[in-house]
Amino acid sequence: MGVLNDAELAAFAADHPGWSAGPSGLEGEFTFADFTEAFSFMTRIALMAERANHHPDMSISWNRLTVRLVTHSAGGVTDTDTALAVAIDRIPRP
Amino acid sequence: MGVLNDAELAAFAADHPGWSAGPSGLEGEFTFADFTEAFSFMTRIALMAERANHHPDMSISWNRLTVRLVTHSAGGVTDTDTALAVAIDRIPRP
Amino acid sequence: MGVLNDAELAAFAADHPGWSAGPSGLEGEFTFADFTEAFSFMTRIALMAERANHHPDMSISWNRLTVRLVTHSAGGVTDTDTALAVAIDRIPRP
Amino acid sequence: MGVLNDAELAAFAADHPGWSAGPSGLEGEFTFADFTEAFSFMTRIALMAERANHHPDMSISWNRLTVRLVTHSAGGVTDTDTALAVAIDRIPRP
Repeated sequence: MGVLNDAELAAFAADHPGWSAGPSGLEGEFTFADFTEAFSFMTRIALMAERANHHPDMSISWNRLTVRLVTHSAGGVTDTDTALAVAIDRIPRP
Repeated sequence: MGVLNDAELAAFAADHPGWSAGPSGLEGEFTFADFTEAFSFMTRIALMAERANHHPDMSISWNRLTVRLVTHSAGGVTDTDTALAVAIDRIPRP
Repeated sequence: MGVLNDAELAAFAADHPGWSAGPSGLEGEFTFADFTEAFSFMTRIALMAERANHHPDMSISWNRLTVRLVTHSAGGVTDTDTALAVAIDRIPRP
Repeated sequence: MGVLNDAELAAFAADHPGWSAGPSGLEGEFTFADFTEAFSFMTRIALMAERANHHPDMSISWNRLTVRLVTHSAGGVTDTDTALAVAIDRIPRP
């Protein structure tokens, strides 16, 4: 599977406001009302990730969730990552 | 803590459309887009319940979640139950 | 996919102590130290179910978890159900 | 509530093998069989944290979970943090 080059990554980030391209992949930041809302959103991503057998790194700090997407086996961000980012963006937010 | 009588239970259910008064307590039914949405909503209730140290019985069947609230130690539905029902109603739904 | 007949269901239940064959499928009952242990075990089953795209009905009542496995589209218990039951049995318990 | 000084932090870490004292607080690393086991353990910590209204920063990377405990309002690691670390250590591991 092809790895996105820098121009493709920048184009994806420009089209998907919650996401930015960093050295370690595609990174999304999400802020919620409180820990319960943040953790339940994280649980939904966990279920989607397990379904896809493609697991982002995730960090939670009370009401803030950071999601990092990269395909380690490919050495970069692939279509699998951008597909999961798009699926996360489609989760309805309150 | 006082147990709601039948008239009070009926009044609560009339004011809170998702909830009905049954023989085993206050029962709420919630339907979601799919299992991931239902289970993450259930996770949020689980966190709220653990915080309140008052745990409803919950059943999940793919996209349907049933929540049953009763205070066993009091032998009926109490203010603790209606408070949790109101808190669940306040969770933003997509 | 073939539906297990009564003799096959009884044989499975005899071989797998936590499970019994009921009118609505294969039913497992699990008891835990408290709600947090029960709900986190339930979360693990939820992830496995989403991965398999085969979701049992589950009910939680504080420290008790009930899991019901049936393949509605096949009208009975199939190998998909027994495979998930076996996978649940393999989850290490404290 | 008192903040642990460096000697007290070092003593705690010496007594609790999974934990180390870092610049950002008390840090624990946990490794599991797979994502489902790691995330369900994380869910149990999330429930305990919500009960205590004291939420560690947590990061998950497939089968690895990192937990960071600090009391921001006190400017350091307090008894609330060490109590949660001890409670996490008491969670039975497979």
